[in-house]
Amino acid sequence: MSAKQKPNRIKPRLPRGFADRGAAEIAATRRMTETIRAVYERYGFEPVETPAIEFTEALGKFLPDQDRPNEGVFSFQDDDEQWLSLRYDLTAPLARYVAENFDALPKPYRSYRAGYVFRNEKPGPGRFRQFMQFDADTVGSASPAADAEMCMMAADALEALGIPRGSYVIKVNNRKVLDGVMESIGLAGNENAGKRLAVLRAIDKYDRLGVDGVQALLGEGRKDESGDYTQGAKLTEDQTLAIVEFIFSGANSQGQFSKQGSLPLTRSTLPSAFSVRKFDNAGRVKNLRTLFPKNATYNEGLDELQAIAAIAANFDPEGTVISVDPSVIRGLEYYTGPVYEAELTFEIKDDKGRPVRFGSVGGGGRYDGLIGRFRAEPVPATGFSIGVSRLQSALTALGKLGAEKETGPVVVTVFDRERIADYQRMVTALRNAGIRAELYLGNPKNFGNQLKYADRRNSPCVVIQGGDEKARGEVQIKDLILGAEIAGLSTERDDYLRKQAEAQFAVPEADLVRAVREVLSRHR
Amino acid sequence: MSAKQKPNRIKPRLPRGFADRGAAEIAATRRMTETIRAVYERYGFEPVETPAIEFTEALGKFLPDQDRPNEGVFSFQDDDEQWLSLRYDLTAPLARYVAENFDALPKPYRSYRAGYVFRNEKPGPGRFRQFMQFDADTVGSASPAADAEMCMMAADALEALGIPRGSYVIKVNNRKVLDGVMESIGLAGNENAGKRLAVLRAIDKYDRLGVDGVQALLGEGRKDESGDYTQGAKLTEDQTLAIVEFIFSGANSQGQFSKQGSLPLTRSTLPSAFSVRKFDNAGRVKNLRTLFPKNATYNEGLDELQAIAAIAANFDPEGTVISVDPSVIRGLEYYTGPVYEAELTFEIKDDKGRPVRFGSVGGGGRYDGLIGRFRAEPVPATGFSIGVSRLQSALTALGKLGAEKETGPVVVTVFDRERIADYQRMVTALRNAGIRAELYLGNPKNFGNQLKYADRRNSPCVVIQGGDEKARGEVQIKDLILGAEIAGLSTERDDYLRKQAEAQFAVPEADLVRAVREVLSRHR
Repeated sequence: MSAKQKPNRIKPRLPRGFADRGAAEIAATRRMTETIRAVYERYGFEPVETPAIEFTEALGKFLPDQDRPNEGVFSFQDDDEQWLSLRYDLTAPLARYVAENFDALPKPYRSYRAGYVFRNEKPGPGRFRQFMQFDADTVGSASPAADAEMCMMAADALEALGIPRGSYVIKVNNRKVLDGVMESIGLAGNENAGKRLAVLRAIDKYDRLGVDGVQALLGEGRKDESGDYTQGAKLTEDQTLAIVEFIFSGANSQGQFSKQGSLPLTRSTLPSAFSVRKFDNAGRVKNLRTLFPKNATYNEGLDELQAIAAIAANFDPEGTVISVDPSVIRGLEYYTGPVYEAELTFEIKDDKGRPVRFGSVGGGGRYDGLIGRFRAEPVPATGFSIGVSRLQSALTALGKLGAEKETGPVVVTVFDRERIADYQRMVTALRNAGIRAELYLGNPKNFGNQLKYADRRNSPCVVIQGGDEKARGEVQIKDLILGAEIAGLSTERDDYLRKQAEAQFAVPEADLVRAVREVLSRHR
Repeated sequence: MSAKQKPNRIKPRLPRGFADRGAAEIAATRRMTETIRAVYERYGFEPVETPAIEFTEALGKFLPDQDRPNEGVFSFQDDDEQWLSLRYDLTAPLARYVAENFDALPKPYRSYRAGYVFRNEKPGPGRFRQFMQFDADTVGSASPAADAEMCMMAADALEALGIPRGSYVIKVNNRKVLDGVMESIGLAGNENAGKRLAVLRAIDKYDRLGVDGVQALLGEGRKDESGDYTQGAKLTEDQTLAIVEFIFSGANSQGQFSKQGSLPLTRSTLPSAFSVRKFDNAGRVKNLRTLFPKNATYNEGLDELQAIAAIAANFDPEGTVISVDPSVIRGLEYYTGPVYEAELTFEIKDDKGRPVRFGSVGGGGRYDGLIGRFRAEPVPATGFSIGVSRLQSALTALGKLGAEKETGPVVVTVFDRERIADYQRMVTALRNAGIRAELYLGNPKNFGNQLKYADRRNSPCVVIQGGDEKARGEVQIKDLILGAEIAGLSTERDDYLRKQAEAQFAVPEADLVRAVREVLSRHR
């Protein structure tokens, strides 16, 4: 092909990690967000929205001692050289908004918002660089009741979306409890920051790797099934066992082990690993109380967990929905108190047909320091964020979002291209009667193409008026759904003929709307 | 203040040209977009959405011979050095989408979408760098019926939003007609591109500057009221008069003049300026036919306008809603045929209290070349775009979006902070009954603050339970709306006492939901 034949043609494509959204997906998202919105409104929250672009410094994404914004965010310089970034979550912009409008807002300030966020990260299957979050936040309340409410609201939203009680759990932990553990085993202070991070990462893997996996990651390290080796936190045996005992004491069922199931526990294989059976929230908090009785941070954290559990007990008398769980970490560094994670506990099949737990669809926690970056005094705040696309996948897998194809428009076909205005008048009459309808706008030459188009659009029926019908003042109505049904019939001849007469029939043009309504009512 | 007292505090603010959106504005946008959506669905359109980020080259915003993207767009390089941009409209991304999914889409393909677009331009009053557009497009139809439908759909959407017929007009023109004028007066060819642009800019100002203003801009130039001088297109007198006659011949009322009202027309002050009275669309097209009878492009454009007017006549028998108007230009360079502009014709007051016509709230046209950038064969397409914030301002000014403040949640107050779980149980009972309710989550020490908060949230009533009520198994309900009313009463003592008894009363705790429902029903 010569250069002349292909003049600078551009390839139509999207950058990696971005996706278009079709009609069914958009409709599902709308139904979902409307349901969540109704729950959040009932909880007394009101909407507020911020733009997609913020000053980079307002998002807190400048690395120390660097002139350029942190990786992970899309950033660019404004014409006055100031750095701007696309928001990577909805929490940092809310903190900016509250700080900017502090005096004008009621306090506590309850608000919610859905919006797209952007991550300049390596995309992968199910990982996008633009995705939607649905957040709710209560600013100006230090009370654990505010955290408890977030958990109850998350549970109510999931149930309103059709996920039954028992198929999800809202796990609650507290950063203060974790900090107290670190202090108690000698990992406080700046010099241990790296070690603490490694410990949190190890605890975070309890669900997936079991206690033996966590223990390996707290110690020397761990080789996974593929042979890859992960360096461990290099804790002493005492430190490791203290953390393992902590996880077990708060666990809501007997300690899990990985499939490999080896037991390096020792100290006579840690009695608590087997004594802990099924405790309710109060029982688990009581177990945890015995571990580090002298550490103030630890006990403050447990007080808050206890208060949350007590309030949530009204909502969830059995304590199975909102569940204290010391293995919950949450990645973001700005959490200062209670953290929560919403997990779907039912199993779906993965790409290879193996059953897997669906897992996390949202989470949040208390971030008392974030608004304080802008203000002289600290401002307590807590919030919950739903990963909309992830939850939507789960609901779609459960068939909760109405997957069936919607009925398309009635198509008025063009038989005689000189009479477009006549056909358009029929379309207008149908639309004025509230019926979804359209004129065929392609090249009308091939009438078969018009019917194919109507099929493609899932049209319930088409309207036809050729010269003969025009002369008689009539229109033909062709019921495409019935037509498709009788295409399968042939043996029962009477039935076939009767249905054929129903599937295509003529009416006076003045009866067009009534006749189309009749066809639509057949397929309701 | 020492550096220690103010440790790196960040100023909470947004970059210029970006804005936060509060509850009332969000609710108004939602009502508005839902109404537009319902109309577009009735017309047989279906939703499709594209992401905010595209390859810069897909948007066509590379200037010739430059390595950096055009000004006006926000752009940044991906980690593989490819340039990405935030979309500046919804048309260019749709063209990319259609080209990418061409074979999978029904054709003609009717779709709609609402979304934010971004302009890296100097912001000003009412001009933002992020704003919402609501677009509809028909791809794959070259028929003027597709353009006519866009105009009718725009009109239907405006009427569905409460703008009555007569308060708006959809003006229609055709780029081919304008091109034909240029060819006829000797302004064809690349060497005249700059002159043509100056001519289009001058014609575009007809509404605002009147015919004398346009004439000055077509000739030497024009000094405005502030004394600023705009260079003219430097046409000859014959060229200028030909264009003025063209505008008049298609105008739907006698030629307008600016306030200065001088008349430099000549050639015996151009008879057509005064002979043209009020013609309908057909009459105006007939007038225009007489001007450049030999130019093929011009006549093809008029044929299309005539076809659009004929189809629209079903919808708009008087031809006042969809109106042929040769002074409509539309800025974007990619239009290739019919162009349309939706204008609100009623007057509002400007900042200084002077009446001004509200003006354009949307527009569009045919862009047959845009998808062809990606494909071997050209693909005809036409679309209409609504400026959501601009239209929302107009509807708000007209009081069509329900400006009244929405009722806030019922607030359950905290009298005894040890009994938070009890109060929370009341909140849960109210919410389970579908009543918007919340627990006061601020510091409960000052009870007056709790009532102030409820006022601030526009709560219909608060629920109170102190120790005495608790002992009696009762709750107090305080009707805040009635309470505010009786604060004004005093003379009619019986009435006052009766109302006071209604405004605050005790009920058994078991009757909480029923009693709150009763208060809510008072204020419906």
